[in-house]
Amino acid sequence: MPIKRRQFIATAGLAGLAATALSRPAIAQTMPELHWRLTSSFPRSLDLLYGGCETFAKAVAEATDNRFQIQTFAGGDIVPSLQALEAVQNGTVEMCQTAMYYYWNKDPTFAFATGVPFGMNAREANAWLYHGGGNDLLNEFFKEYQVFALPAGNTGCQMGGWFRKELKALADVNGLKFRIGGFAGAVLQRLGGTPEPLAAAEIYSALEKGTIDAADYLGPYDDEKLSFNKIAPYYYYPGWWAGGSTLHIAIGANKWAELPKAYQAVVTAAAALANVDVQARYDAKNPAALKRLVATGSQLRPFPQEVMEASYKAAVDIFQELSDGNANFKKVHDAYMTFRNDQYLWWQVAEYSYDNFLIRQRAKG
Amino acid sequence: MPIKRRQFIATAGLAGLAATALSRPAIAQTMPELHWRLTSSFPRSLDLLYGGCETFAKAVAEATDNRFQIQTFAGGDIVPSLQALEAVQNGTVEMCQTAMYYYWNKDPTFAFATGVPFGMNAREANAWLYHGGGNDLLNEFFKEYQVFALPAGNTGCQMGGWFRKELKALADVNGLKFRIGGFAGAVLQRLGGTPEPLAAAEIYSALEKGTIDAADYLGPYDDEKLSFNKIAPYYYYPGWWAGGSTLHIAIGANKWAELPKAYQAVVTAAAALANVDVQARYDAKNPAALKRLVATGSQLRPFPQEVMEASYKAAVDIFQELSDGNANFKKVHDAYMTFRNDQYLWWQVAEYSYDNFLIRQRAKG
Repeated sequence: MPIKRRQFIATAGLAGLAATALSRPAIAQTMPELHWRLTSSFPRSLDLLYGGCETFAKAVAEATDNRFQIQTFAGGDIVPSLQALEAVQNGTVEMCQTAMYYYWNKDPTFAFATGVPFGMNAREANAWLYHGGGNDLLNEFFKEYQVFALPAGNTGCQMGGWFRKELKALADVNGLKFRIGGFAGAVLQRLGGTPEPLAAAEIYSALEKGTIDAADYLGPYDDEKLSFNKIAPYYYYPGWWAGGSTLHIAIGANKWAELPKAYQAVVTAAAALANVDVQARYDAKNPAALKRLVATGSQLRPFPQEVMEASYKAAVDIFQELSDGNANFKKVHDAYMTFRNDQYLWWQVAEYSYDNFLIRQRAKG
Repeated sequence: MPIKRRQFIATAGLAGLAATALSRPAIAQTMPELHWRLTSSFPRSLDLLYGGCETFAKAVAEATDNRFQIQTFAGGDIVPSLQALEAVQNGTVEMCQTAMYYYWNKDPTFAFATGVPFGMNAREANAWLYHGGGNDLLNEFFKEYQVFALPAGNTGCQMGGWFRKELKALADVNGLKFRIGGFAGAVLQRLGGTPEPLAAAEIYSALEKGTIDAADYLGPYDDEKLSFNKIAPYYYYPGWWAGGSTLHIAIGANKWAELPKAYQAVVTAAAALANVDVQARYDAKNPAALKRLVATGSQLRPFPQEVMEASYKAAVDIFQELSDGNANFKKVHDAYMTFRNDQYLWWQVAEYSYDNFLIRQRAKG
């Protein structure tokens, strides 16, 4: 056996390679040179999110020997952040990097692509998307918007935001002016709070003046850069509306169909690379940022249990109401929630007890 | 702006693509036709593990329009399962898919690549590998074995194995004959147990006869296939020696260096795709398998706290002893554990409290 194997290696060695390479130029010539543009929903300042589309574009270029080049633009450079999907739909750009839940006003079904209140954590979301039918279900829905999309990053569970005063009970949510959007804002309203959809640049000043009482942004690494800790000392967790937010690369459906199969495979693998890479970078960066925030006076607070439970109940009610009036929503909701419940059935056994033990051991020093 | 953009799209449309493709055949011709062989450490019966190298090879072939083909062989087909790394080192095959901790007898430093007792969970491991310096540190070490390796899959936290009798206290570990290997076996010995390194095919009969008292294998999906539930009713968790086991694709260092940069990029992205894909598949498959096992009488049991704590202490002692006598080990150990501790500092805040809430809500129905 070993001798035979070495013979095989010898004949398939470098000399052989060069010969076969020259014998098949026809196939290689079918690979077109492409220059595409990608618009991101994220600014350069959110460097880990925006970095996801740079990682993706770099991987595609390198894997195709620079024949398939994707120029990336930050939100606002050529297309406003929240119009990234429309820009793909109308052919302004070939692709975008976005959080699909930004389009929940078009159809709340979009939210399941990114994550919904009390939805799956990041790893469970990947399980659903890649092997629970999620990607197929969502792309069936995305067809209505003429896009094909691939998961391409995750933030992990986000924080619950910065509060000027402690939130001690459910009653404190009544009248709370909270910078938060989308689905979470709808839940907040059910609890008597007021969602305030401010742009990132407006948050600090509104929080400082007391125009708003609290502001959600993302997690330690991104939040630290906006200095919320200087004006709102209480840093709440968890972000129950963002237990594991998936980013997507969305591609014009006709553009996707036109791509050679090899380029489709490159894009698919590059998106998966961005998926694991964005999450890894967030996880690598968040601990040090959290330490710095706590060292400069930020006080970590869990949301009171009754706030969590009331929010959960309100979310379930909204899911039900939306399901009643929207067949798309109902279809994806039912599949998503069935999968989530099974995920947590399993997660509570090995994963959760393992993490629980390590967390307690660490606390002991 | 919109008009300009549409003009850009028009000129970069399909007609333009064909022309540029024809104008640059020289570059495409430099991409060689390669036929490589990959030997796996896993049998086909472990279809999710072995499936990881099939996913990887398929992605490489598709992304290169079948110019770079990797033929995959299951453990034992051409190389024994635990000699996969040597087969790459000696050039028998160009690459392998393996769990690096199988080679811990050569140097215990290998164990950090896959995971060590009370090590990082799957997502934390990715954070360390991709953005905490882990991949670089490990590849520096792997140079001594003439291989370059990339993470290419994870099982998530594994179960703690099948026990004929309940393990109620630390004293029950004394004299326990447990089918378990590697680092976990060394820890077990410190607690008075006996590690029994049986091959998978030997476990059922040994457990049935009582030659061994307990057997670790993997998790619900894989364990179910071997029917351990019929002869050992107690199914323990968590597998504290496998909190998130990373698989690797290892490539001969000289073979890696010879690859065109574009193929290196394809292999890197395909390995990342396999990484997220194997984990997603395990997470998607395990819940239903767990339900079936419990429905047929398997009884879930957490390891007693004192067993967990004694195992933790023994593991820390072994880490210290190995660090004292092995500079490679100490270097990687110190980096790994510092990173792990910071990961759990952060994990306990948002992730853990989020999962905790969802687990309890699910239990309520």
